[in-house]
Amino acid sequence: MDSSPRIAPPSPEIAALAQQRLAALATPPGALGRVGEIGAWVAAAQGEVPPRPLTDVRLVVFAGDHGVAAHGVSAYPAAVTEAMVRTIVSGRAGVSALAREHGVQVSVLDVSVDADLSDLPAEVTARKVRRGSGAIHLEDALTRDEVERSLALGAAVAGEHVDDGAQLLMTGDLGIGNTTPAAALVAALLGLPADEVTGRGTGVDDDGWTRKRDVIAAALLRTEGRAGDPVDLLAAIGSADLAAAAGFLVEASTRGVPVLLDGLMSVACAAVAQALAPGAAAWWVAGHRSTEPAQAHALKSLGLEPLLDVGMRLGEGSGAVAALPVLRSGVAVLRDVALLTDILPG
Amino acid sequence: MDSSPRIAPPSPEIAALAQQRLAALATPPGALGRVGEIGAWVAAAQGEVPPRPLTDVRLVVFAGDHGVAAHGVSAYPAAVTEAMVRTIVSGRAGVSALAREHGVQVSVLDVSVDADLSDLPAEVTARKVRRGSGAIHLEDALTRDEVERSLALGAAVAGEHVDDGAQLLMTGDLGIGNTTPAAALVAALLGLPADEVTGRGTGVDDDGWTRKRDVIAAALLRTEGRAGDPVDLLAAIGSADLAAAAGFLVEASTRGVPVLLDGLMSVACAAVAQALAPGAAAWWVAGHRSTEPAQAHALKSLGLEPLLDVGMRLGEGSGAVAALPVLRSGVAVLRDVALLTDILPG
Repeated sequence: MDSSPRIAPPSPEIAALAQQRLAALATPPGALGRVGEIGAWVAAAQGEVPPRPLTDVRLVVFAGDHGVAAHGVSAYPAAVTEAMVRTIVSGRAGVSALAREHGVQVSVLDVSVDADLSDLPAEVTARKVRRGSGAIHLEDALTRDEVERSLALGAAVAGEHVDDGAQLLMTGDLGIGNTTPAAALVAALLGLPADEVTGRGTGVDDDGWTRKRDVIAAALLRTEGRAGDPVDLLAAIGSADLAAAAGFLVEASTRGVPVLLDGLMSVACAAVAQALAPGAAAWWVAGHRSTEPAQAHALKSLGLEPLLDVGMRLGEGSGAVAALPVLRSGVAVLRDVALLTDILPG
Repeated sequence: MDSSPRIAPPSPEIAALAQQRLAALATPPGALGRVGEIGAWVAAAQGEVPPRPLTDVRLVVFAGDHGVAAHGVSAYPAAVTEAMVRTIVSGRAGVSALAREHGVQVSVLDVSVDADLSDLPAEVTARKVRRGSGAIHLEDALTRDEVERSLALGAAVAGEHVDDGAQLLMTGDLGIGNTTPAAALVAALLGLPADEVTGRGTGVDDDGWTRKRDVIAAALLRTEGRAGDPVDLLAAIGSADLAAAAGFLVEASTRGVPVLLDGLMSVACAAVAQALAPGAAAWWVAGHRSTEPAQAHALKSLGLEPLLDVGMRLGEGSGAVAALPVLRSGVAVLRDVALLTDILPG
C-alpha cells in the first residue's frame, strides 16, 4: 500500500444543505438530537439531500487466530475461533441473528484462522494469508509482506462491496485472543501504558487480566519505537485479520463509502487506518461503546462518540449491527418529516 | 378508577427460564450486555421463551393543550398543538417518519386540545374530555370528574389495543406547554423543588426557563399536600392528556402487556401510574434519556435505565420508537442464536 494523500471528507456543501434541511423540519431546533445529526451525516456521505434509505448494508467479519491465545490471555481456547467461523457461516452466531433482524448482509473471511477450514465455501477461505499470527510478546505477529498482503486483501474486499452497490459498510472481528493485539495497537498509537488499555475481553478473571496486561506490556516493550510506521506496527504487534480490517477501512474511505464501526477491534483498526490514510476517519461513525477501555481511548483519539451504550462486548460486528437502526432513524426523519413551511399557515 | 391491588409482575419462572436460555447461548456470559437482558425481559413479559418477534407494536399519542402555555413557559404558541395533531394524522410528523421506519402503528388522540378538530376522523376526536387544561399555577388543571374520565379513557384505549393483539405499547404526548405539568407532577411525587425539575422543553431561553420554573414553583406551592392522592394530584397540577396516558399505563400493566416508555411526559405519567397501581412499573422499560431533568428523576424513582441516550427531546413518543430496535435485537438473539451445546463438540 502506497502512502496516500489526505483522504477528502464528505462534501461540506452537501453537509451544509443537510443541516439546512434538518433545521427546516417541523420539529423544534435540535429536538431530534443525534438522530437528526446522524441523518445529516449520512446525507453528506451519500452526497445527496435528503439521504437515500440504507437498504444495502454489509458487514465483513475478519477472522484470525493469535499466538497470545496460548499464553492465558483469554477465557476461551483457540479452538473456539474455528467453531465461531462455522457458526457465522451457518447463520447462527450472535451477529447472524442481529443482522437478520436489521437487514444486514454478513460475510466472514478466514484471514488467519489456525485451522483447516477448506471445507467451507471459497469466498470464506480463498484469501487466507496464514494460519494464526505470532505471539506478540515474543515475536512479530507478521512479516511486512504479510501485512501488505493483508491490507491489500481487506482493500480488495471493500472495493468489491462498493462496486457491488454497498451503501454502508461495517467491520467485525472474530478470533480468540483478538482484544490483546487490538489493545496493544491502541496503546502503541496513543502512547498509553498496558494498564490503561487492558480489558476483560470475553471475560477473563483477575489472574487472566494480569497475564493479558503483562503480555501487552511485554509486546510494547519489545517493539518500542515502531509506532511511527503503521505497516511496521501491524507487523510488530498486530495480526493478519486486524491488518485486513485496516485495509478495508482505508479503501472504504478512499472510495467515499461510510462505515459504521463496531467495538475494540473495529475501532483499533480504524485508528491504524487513520494513521495509514489521514482523513479517513471523516467517513466513519461509531456504533457502540464496548466495555473495553482501549476502545474508549481509540474513539476519543478519533473524535468519535458512539450511538449505543448497552454494555455489549460480543465482537463479530454485533455492536455496529445493533446501532444501525439509529442511522436509519436519522435517514427517515430527513426524508419523511414535513417542513415547517408545509404545516404552518402564512 | 378503584384503587387496585398490587399489580403482579411478569412471571418469575419464565424470567428465570429466559435467563437460562440467555446463559446457554453460544456467546460469552454477559457479552450481549443489555441487549440480552432486554430480550429476556420481553420473554418474561410475553410469558414465553424464546420470545415472539415484536411485529405488533402500537404508539398512542395523547394530545392536549395547557393553560400555562399562555404564561410564557414555551418557545411556541399553543396554536402549534393543533398543527402538530394534523401533521401526525397526515403522517408527516417526526414520530410518523420514525414509526414508518420501525414498523410501529401510531394513533393520536385529541384528549384536550384547545381547538376544534371535528373535521378529523372520529377515532382522533370522539373521546375529547375538554378544550385545554387549567393553568396550574393559578387554578386546578381539571376537576376530579375530568381526571376520572381521562383515566378511564386511557384505560379503554389500552384495553382496545390489547384486545386487538398489540404485543408492545408506547405512550407519547403532544401539546405546547406539556413539560410544565409533567415536571410539576414529578416534583410533587418526589418532593423536589421546581429548580431541579425545570428543563428547556422545546427550547426556551433563560428568561423562559425562569418563567417556567416560577410557574412550576407556584403550582407546587398552591397545591402543597395533595401528592398523596394521585387522582387529586392530576386534578391539581396535571392535565387531561397526561391523566389519559396514566390510565393507559395502568391498564397495560393490569392486562400484562409491556410498555416501552418515551421521554418526560411518558415517564412522568408512569410515575403517576405506579402511584395509582403499585407494581405496574414491572411491565415498563425506558426507551430513551431525554434532555429534561425531571425525566431523569422520574426514571431513577422507577428504577429504570434508558436504552438510548442520543439527546432527543421531540416528544410525540419519538424516543420510544427510536429505541424499539434494541428490544427487537434482544428478541432476535434469544430466538436465533445457537446454543453453546449445538456448536461445540462433546
